[in-house]
Amino acid sequence: GALGGLGLWLWRRQAVMAASEEDEEEKELRQRFMAPPVSGLRELRRRRRELRSRMELLIMETQAEVCRALAALDPGAAFAVDTWERKEGGGGISCVLQDGEVFEKAGVNVSVVFGHLSEEAARQMRSRGKSLKAKDGKLPFCAMGVSSVIHPKNPHIPTMHFNYRYFEIEEADGTKQWWFGGGTDLTPTYLNEEDAVHFHKTLKEACDKHDVKLYPKYKKWCDDYFFIEHRGERRGIGGIFFDDVDSPSKEEVFQFVKSCAKAVVPCYIPIVKRHCNDSFTPEEKLWQQLRRGRYVEFNLVYDRGTKFGLLTPGSRIESILMSLPLTARWEYMHTPPESSKEAEILEVLRNPKDWVH
Amino acid sequence: GALGGLGLWLWRRQAVMAASEEDEEEKELRQRFMAPPVSGLRELRRRRRELRSRMELLIMETQAEVCRALAALDPGAAFAVDTWERKEGGGGISCVLQDGEVFEKAGVNVSVVFGHLSEEAARQMRSRGKSLKAKDGKLPFCAMGVSSVIHPKNPHIPTMHFNYRYFEIEEADGTKQWWFGGGTDLTPTYLNEEDAVHFHKTLKEACDKHDVKLYPKYKKWCDDYFFIEHRGERRGIGGIFFDDVDSPSKEEVFQFVKSCAKAVVPCYIPIVKRHCNDSFTPEEKLWQQLRRGRYVEFNLVYDRGTKFGLLTPGSRIESILMSLPLTARWEYMHTPPESSKEAEILEVLRNPKDWVH
Repeated sequence: GALGGLGLWLWRRQAVMAASEEDEEEKELRQRFMAPPVSGLRELRRRRRELRSRMELLIMETQAEVCRALAALDPGAAFAVDTWERKEGGGGISCVLQDGEVFEKAGVNVSVVFGHLSEEAARQMRSRGKSLKAKDGKLPFCAMGVSSVIHPKNPHIPTMHFNYRYFEIEEADGTKQWWFGGGTDLTPTYLNEEDAVHFHKTLKEACDKHDVKLYPKYKKWCDDYFFIEHRGERRGIGGIFFDDVDSPSKEEVFQFVKSCAKAVVPCYIPIVKRHCNDSFTPEEKLWQQLRRGRYVEFNLVYDRGTKFGLLTPGSRIESILMSLPLTARWEYMHTPPESSKEAEILEVLRNPKDWVH
Repeated sequence: GALGGLGLWLWRRQAVMAASEEDEEEKELRQRFMAPPVSGLRELRRRRRELRSRMELLIMETQAEVCRALAALDPGAAFAVDTWERKEGGGGISCVLQDGEVFEKAGVNVSVVFGHLSEEAARQMRSRGKSLKAKDGKLPFCAMGVSSVIHPKNPHIPTMHFNYRYFEIEEADGTKQWWFGGGTDLTPTYLNEEDAVHFHKTLKEACDKHDVKLYPKYKKWCDDYFFIEHRGERRGIGGIFFDDVDSPSKEEVFQFVKSCAKAVVPCYIPIVKRHCNDSFTPEEKLWQQLRRGRYVEFNLVYDRGTKFGLLTPGSRIESILMSLPLTARWEYMHTPPESSKEAEILEVLRNPKDWVH
C-alpha cells in the first residue's frame, strides 16, 4: 500500500512544510525512484488525487522495485539510467542492464507522454477502434506506462515481459476517455512445469483479489495476443494480457493494475533464483538463440506497442527496441528431434496449457 | 544469350526426338538447374514462346549461376536444395548454404506460384495500388521470381541481396495485367569505395544497354525503398530497385530484367574474392552483428515482399525468412565514436552517395 500511503503522507506534510523540508522530501523521493518523475514531484503532489498522478507514481515505483530486485541478483552489473524528453511533450526514464553475469539484457522503461493525436492515430491506439470526436482534427492525449523485457543468459531462466499503461484522450465536447492496458508473460527456452505453475498461480492470485473472472479471461487474451501467426506458435507460455479496459470504474481498474504491477517481482524473481546456477550445454544455448529469433519476429512483425511506437513521430526508438535480445539466431529449417526437450516446449507453444486449475 | 538459344534449341529438337532422347534432354537440363523447374520441362517446352516460360527459365538459370559461383568460393560447404509445393498452386526451389567457411548464410530461392487472389490481395501486391476488376471476387494470378540474400562471415565482405520477379493477373474481362519488379543491392559492414563503385558501375552498365535513364531512376528508388525510417538510415549502400514496371513493352522489360539478372555474379563475386582472406578483429565482427540487427529490422518491419509473404496463406515461411542472417545483435544505445570506420559507413547510410558519374 506504499502508493496510497504516499499520497496521504504528502498531503499531510504539505501544510507544515518549509522550503528546506521540501528539499529533503524531494531527495528522499528521488532515492525511492530510479530518476525524478517526468511530471515533476511538485506537480504530482499538486494533483495527487488525480489518477494520472497516482498511475505515474505506480509506474515509477514498479520500475525501481524491479530494477532493484534484478540488480541484487547480478551484483557485478548495474542499471544505466537514461532520462529523455519528447519534443512534442513528456519524456521517460530508461533503465538498462546489458551483458551482466545473469542477465544478457534487462530493460525497464517508464514513459509519460502527452500532446495531440490525429483522429486516425487515436483510433489505432485504441484496440477496439472506437471513434473519437476531435476539435479541429486534434485530440489532447496523455499516455503513460512501464514496460520491461528481461533476457537472462542462462537458457534455464526464462525471458519475462511486463507492461502496464494508462491512456487519456479528451474529445471535442470535453469528455475524457480513459483506459488501462497491460500484462505479464513468460518466455522459457525449455519448459519447467514448476516455474510455469508458480508464474501463473502468482498472477491468478493477483487477479482473483479483484474478480475471479479476470485471470481466465486475461490468460486467454495473452495466449491469443502473443501468437506468431506465420509460425503457428505463441511467443511463450503466456501469463495475462488485457487492453482497452475501462470498467467497472477508474478506481477499481487502477487497483487491479496495481495488484498486477506488485506481482511482477514475486512472479519472476523466485524463478531466476532457482535457475541462476543451473549448468547448460552449448546446444541448449543455441536453442535459446533460435528462440530469441522468434522473440524478435513477434516483436517486429506483430506487437502493437512496438509497431505503434516505431510509426509515432518523436518516439524514442532505443527505448522501444530495448525489448530486443542482445543476440538472436535464424537457422533455415531447424526442427528439433521428436520427444526432445526442444520439441516439448514447441508443443506447449503450439497448444497452450492451463497451468492453474 | 543462353536462354534465347535454349528455346530455339528445344524447338528444333522437338520434331526429331524419340522418347529416349527426351530423357537425355531432361537429364541435361536438370543438370543445368538446381532442380527440375516447377512448371515441368515438358510444359515449359510446350509454351516456350510465352513470357511466363522464358521468365521461369531465366530465374532457374540465375539461381544455378549464383549458387555455383558462391559454392566455388566456399569449397567445404554445399547448397542444400529443397523443392516444395504450394497447396494452392505452384511451388519452389530453395537453395541454402549455412555456416560455411566463407558464407554464414546464403540462400537463393525460386518460386512460381499461381491460383486466385482476392481483389484486396491483388491491390496490395501491386505497389501503385491500381484497382483490378474481378469475376466473382477472384482474380487468376501467376507470380514468379528468384530472390537471394548472401550473408558472408568476414565483416569485410558485404551482404548482397537480389530479387527479380514477374506477375500476371487476369481481370474479369479477360485482359491480362502484367508487371516486373526487382533489384540488386549491397549492404557492407564497412565502407570500401572501390567495392561500392564496382558494384554500382556493373549495375549501371547492365541498365545503360536498355535506357540510360534507368540506372539513375532505379538507383534513387533503391535508396528510397531500403530506408529504415525509425533509424533514419538506409539498410545498405543501395544498387537498383524497381517495381510495377510494365513499359515500354513486355519483351523490352524482360530483356532489361535479364541483363540485371546476368549482372548479379559480375557485381558481387569479384568483391567476395577480393576480401575473403582479409583479417578482422572481434570488434569488427561485433559491428557486423549490430548491422545484421538493422538488416532484420528492415526486413521484418518494412520489406513489402517479406510482409506480403508472411501474411499470404500457403506461403513457405522458411523460404521467406531465409533472408534473415544466421546471427544478429541489438545493443542499447550503441553509437560508434566520431571519425571511426563505423561512423563512416553510418554517414553513407544516412546520406546516400552517387557512386558512378
